[in-house]
Amino acid sequence: MTSDTTSSSPALAPPAAPDVTVAALGEHALVERIASRARLSGPHVLVGIGDDAAVTRPERGAVEVTTTDSLVEHVHFRRDWTPLASVGHKALAVNLSDLAAMGAVPQSAFLSLILPAELTVADFDALVGGFLDLATAARVSLIGGNISRSPGPLIVDVTAVGSVRQRRVLRRAGARAGHELYVTGTLGAAAAGLAMFEAGRRRGDGDAVFDACFDHYERPDARWRVASVIARTGAASAAIDLSDGLADAARRLAEAAGLGVVVEAAAVPVDPGARAWAETAGRDALAFAVEGGEDYEVAFAVAPRQRRKFLAAARRGGHVPVTRVGRFVAEPGAWLERDDGRRNELAAGFVHF
Amino acid sequence: MTSDTTSSSPALAPPAAPDVTVAALGEHALVERIASRARLSGPHVLVGIGDDAAVTRPERGAVEVTTTDSLVEHVHFRRDWTPLASVGHKALAVNLSDLAAMGAVPQSAFLSLILPAELTVADFDALVGGFLDLATAARVSLIGGNISRSPGPLIVDVTAVGSVRQRRVLRRAGARAGHELYVTGTLGAAAAGLAMFEAGRRRGDGDAVFDACFDHYERPDARWRVASVIARTGAASAAIDLSDGLADAARRLAEAAGLGVVVEAAAVPVDPGARAWAETAGRDALAFAVEGGEDYEVAFAVAPRQRRKFLAAARRGGHVPVTRVGRFVAEPGAWLERDDGRRNELAAGFVHF
Repeated sequence: MTSDTTSSSPALAPPAAPDVTVAALGEHALVERIASRARLSGPHVLVGIGDDAAVTRPERGAVEVTTTDSLVEHVHFRRDWTPLASVGHKALAVNLSDLAAMGAVPQSAFLSLILPAELTVADFDALVGGFLDLATAARVSLIGGNISRSPGPLIVDVTAVGSVRQRRVLRRAGARAGHELYVTGTLGAAAAGLAMFEAGRRRGDGDAVFDACFDHYERPDARWRVASVIARTGAASAAIDLSDGLADAARRLAEAAGLGVVVEAAAVPVDPGARAWAETAGRDALAFAVEGGEDYEVAFAVAPRQRRKFLAAARRGGHVPVTRVGRFVAEPGAWLERDDGRRNELAAGFVHF
Repeated sequence: MTSDTTSSSPALAPPAAPDVTVAALGEHALVERIASRARLSGPHVLVGIGDDAAVTRPERGAVEVTTTDSLVEHVHFRRDWTPLASVGHKALAVNLSDLAAMGAVPQSAFLSLILPAELTVADFDALVGGFLDLATAARVSLIGGNISRSPGPLIVDVTAVGSVRQRRVLRRAGARAGHELYVTGTLGAAAAGLAMFEAGRRRGDGDAVFDACFDHYERPDARWRVASVIARTGAASAAIDLSDGLADAARRLAEAAGLGVVVEAAAVPVDPGARAWAETAGRDALAFAVEGGEDYEVAFAVAPRQRRKFLAAARRGGHVPVTRVGRFVAEPGAWLERDDGRRNELAAGFVHF
């Protein structure tokens, strides 16, 4: 954000009318609205919003982990389905999920907003508020960004930076044959939430178990807390996040290591909401959990002799369960193994583009 | 870029037909097309494209400078005016200009592309090629990014990271009364280029001096070389880039220091192309140079006793002239001073949003 934020006092007050547009307010006032509400500094921030660029002093002995991801209206979200506060939350969460998959602790973020001129300031505040609430919870300093006008969709593009000791970076490659595949949380709720939207369901239509699916789809948690604790112990040999689903993640971990992988169907922690919606709609709950995208959980490869250390770290890392869902094998390929031992090839990943 | 780039060989060959669309080729193949052509590693890159996030080891004793900026179709460029190779070039250049304004040497970049589904692969290659040619020239490693589909405009969002010693960071605040205002290069050509497009002129319509204006508008240089040499000497007390024009930059440098600034009209290095177009079109060349945006030159505040050191550093930094265009004064305000001593208030900056 190149605007000077030292000049006047921040616009904390609500806009004169809720339907004032962002175009009418102008870029500088919008930047001040953000700066007045954001955590702008942290131990490593030397220059934040208000100069030509941000300046950070990297942590001694640590390396920097950086990722970028966007949410595009009509592609990744619909404003008639998802409140803008949730869009702001998710835009940061998907990036924190990538940091989690590297074992990094989030530190700072850059927020690039491409805004339709007719967006109201109330909507802008909701969008930014959702982003900043998660940033505050994750102790992420917002130290830069950019606001442009969009002649079409609303776009939120985020770059997030985290920190980890070099020898504790969780790479995608690193599994060995015999290592076990673990995932955090439960799977399939985000895919079920999307399917429910597509089927015309809305929040409040049914019971709380359905609303939990909307929550998973719209406001994913990112697992940086548990993942960074696990990374610090060195108990995992590789990791990836589940942005494109378990099948995709398992296949990529295996391919990166020149291995194969077997996912055990009975072990997959299918989310209760996904199961409930699958029953209601006559869909396959396991498909939501294995092939569905956007769960933003993390998958780890763990050597058997590290299992105890891994599980202890996961317990210390928070209230997120971790579940063993499969194993890496020498023979290249990716399979879903049923209870009776039958194997099918794992489905391809969830396609965003 | 979360796609795995280790799987198959890069698609160096041109697409089967030039009108194959990016949607038909798919995200993974697009990422491979980029990875096959990019400088992916550098002395500080530990993990580049192909994992969940990039990992960098910051330079010892240096701080990191990070900036992000986007180019949005129909707002910042038009595909019927500007070749996509130039759009790719400019998307990186505007970010390198922000790094220049902090005195940082560029090191790495993240490229986030939001692409209309019907964009051809030939257009994609041109866009990426323009970005990568400048990245190669600037020794910038492309270490991450993201590709999304756009339901509307083509958007190129870039995050660039550079390095500088902490005590050599060029802040926006730092000028003192009596310091002089310098700029690199000549001013007004980009604004004249835009005005020429708007007047229906096209490249090749006139003389080479006009085409130079199109070049300045479409393919700005960024002044990181000279700016980083100047920063290393400590000869400048503050700096800012001219993305929003000289008037805006001078005013911001002054405001950040709680000062005023006087720009001396006769000293402004008006670009010859801007002068030629102003004469042809009956426009004011000085207005192009003072109020016009997008020159992407850098303005410096320099103490008189540092002048000799500053000029020597500028000479060592390359073939870009630096020109003294004004001075900082104790009285707050921003003025344009004519030859006869009359002063007008400086115009407001160029508005992007």
